Amino acid sequence: MTYCVGLYLKQGLVLLSDTRTNAGVDHISTFSKMHVEEVPGERMIAMLSSGNLAISQQVWSRLQEGVWLDGERHTLRDVPSMFRAAQLIGAAVRAVFEADGPSLRAQGFSFDVALLLGGQITGQPMRLFMIYAAGNFIEATEDTPFLQIGEHKYGKPILDRVVTPDTTLVDGVKLSLISMDSTLRSNLTVGMPLDLLVYREGGCCATLRKRITEDEPYFRSVREGWSNSLREAYRAMPVPDWVPT
Amino acid sequence: MTYCVGLYLKQGLVLLSDTRTNAGVDHISTFSKMHVEEVPGERMIAMLSSGNLAISQQVWSRLQEGVWLDGERHTLRDVPSMFRAAQLIGAAVRAVFEADGPSLRAQGFSFDVALLLGGQITGQPMRLFMIYAAGNFIEATEDTPFLQIGEHKYGKPILDRVVTPDTTLVDGVKLSLISMDSTLRSNLTVGMPLDLLVYREGGCCATLRKRITEDEPYFRSVREGWSNSLREAYRAMPVPDWVPT
Repeated sequence: MTYCVGLYLKQGLVLLSDTRTNAGVDHISTFSKMHVEEVPGERMIAMLSSGNLAISQQVWSRLQEGVWLDGERHTLRDVPSMFRAAQLIGAAVRAVFEADGPSLRAQGFSFDVALLLGGQITGQPMRLFMIYAAGNFIEATEDTPFLQIGEHKYGKPILDRVVTPDTTLVDGVKLSLISMDSTLRSNLTVGMPLDLLVYREGGCCATLRKRITEDEPYFRSVREGWSNSLREAYRAMPVPDWVPT
Repeated sequence: MTYCVGLYLKQGLVLLSDTRTNAGVDHISTFSKMHVEEVPGERMIAMLSSGNLAISQQVWSRLQEGVWLDGERHTLRDVPSMFRAAQLIGAAVRAVFEADGPSLRAQGFSFDVALLLGGQITGQPMRLFMIYAAGNFIEATEDTPFLQIGEHKYGKPILDRVVTPDTTLVDGVKLSLISMDSTLRSNLTVGMPLDLLVYREGGCCATLRKRITEDEPYFRSVREGWSNSLREAYRAMPVPDWVPT
């Protein structure tokens, strides 16, 4: 499995993915699930993937070679808008389904893939989408300023309580790492290292791309600090006075 | 869906379940998922259920009437041990599968049920089991002193970090309510009120049974306090110094 989260903030985007893939528990590997297409100053488009690696890698490979959309062949380097980028990735997903879906079904596998797409093309609004296995998609808004794919449940309670469109980028990095830490701690199919991309609205190039390893001092402080904070918060809560002692 | 959690502590058991059932999002009802069979001073046996309500209710009804196990008909009031109680419930699940499994499959439904079984018979050890849809089961131990069924992921990070066999009953109540609160906050298919059972080891009768509603003052303090504590812990964590501002 996988955990990827995208925050859609007024200041910009924070995108974070783990790197673990597994075909059974005895076949665990490390693959980046974050792909970036960038024309600095003109566009920054990032795609994060979860689900079957053979599907998501093929989606990206097809996007490199060009995908047909409404009679024209496009890549993420030449689509005219983020909405068209989402449609293009949806078209790539559908093309993979057409190619591989029947064989997967014949072997008893579901067509399992979900993608996050975030970015901006100069002069247009920054957008964040989640694309489903059917190639359709939804978009983050101010009401719901984050999207998750993969093992999303462990890390959702803190996002539900804290993230708003006014969360700053630096706080968004902290928050997404806390959300990831809860997932890593409780689910073995999500694993280090992590890929982080921070994008400041209007820049049209990645502000920061960072591979975060076990040894990264800040992430270590998050891991230890958050566990201690949770234990401390738990200890500080009052106990019920109606349990007989 | 459902969320039920059982803590297996040296002092005793803490069992907590929600009460929401849903057949689609437009058909939401309230049903207790906690059933108790008690012969005070001799035995206390509690069963918590998740999954298809028609299956779990039928399991309990069959247990009331008696279920065949190794050539003898038993109820939870006369099984000789907690291990036999787990086997008996497993046999009831298998009997329901035999009766309803083919029709469910014909309609495209899976046979979805999971149960927690906790309790003690006088002179024997207190035990906590999780019973699967196949009628087989596992048991909590000192290494893993909690079991969960239903929507277990949201509320797992705090349990992973805090619960040990030495956790006291009163702390266990606090902890299970915090775990439930994280689940309620993030998943609409888990809902109030809650059913709580506290069992002190050796007593062979429930120490406390309580229906916890939205208005219950302690649970309200947990809900508000925990959200505030999480936000506060998040705010108190340092931010990374490598994000460009």
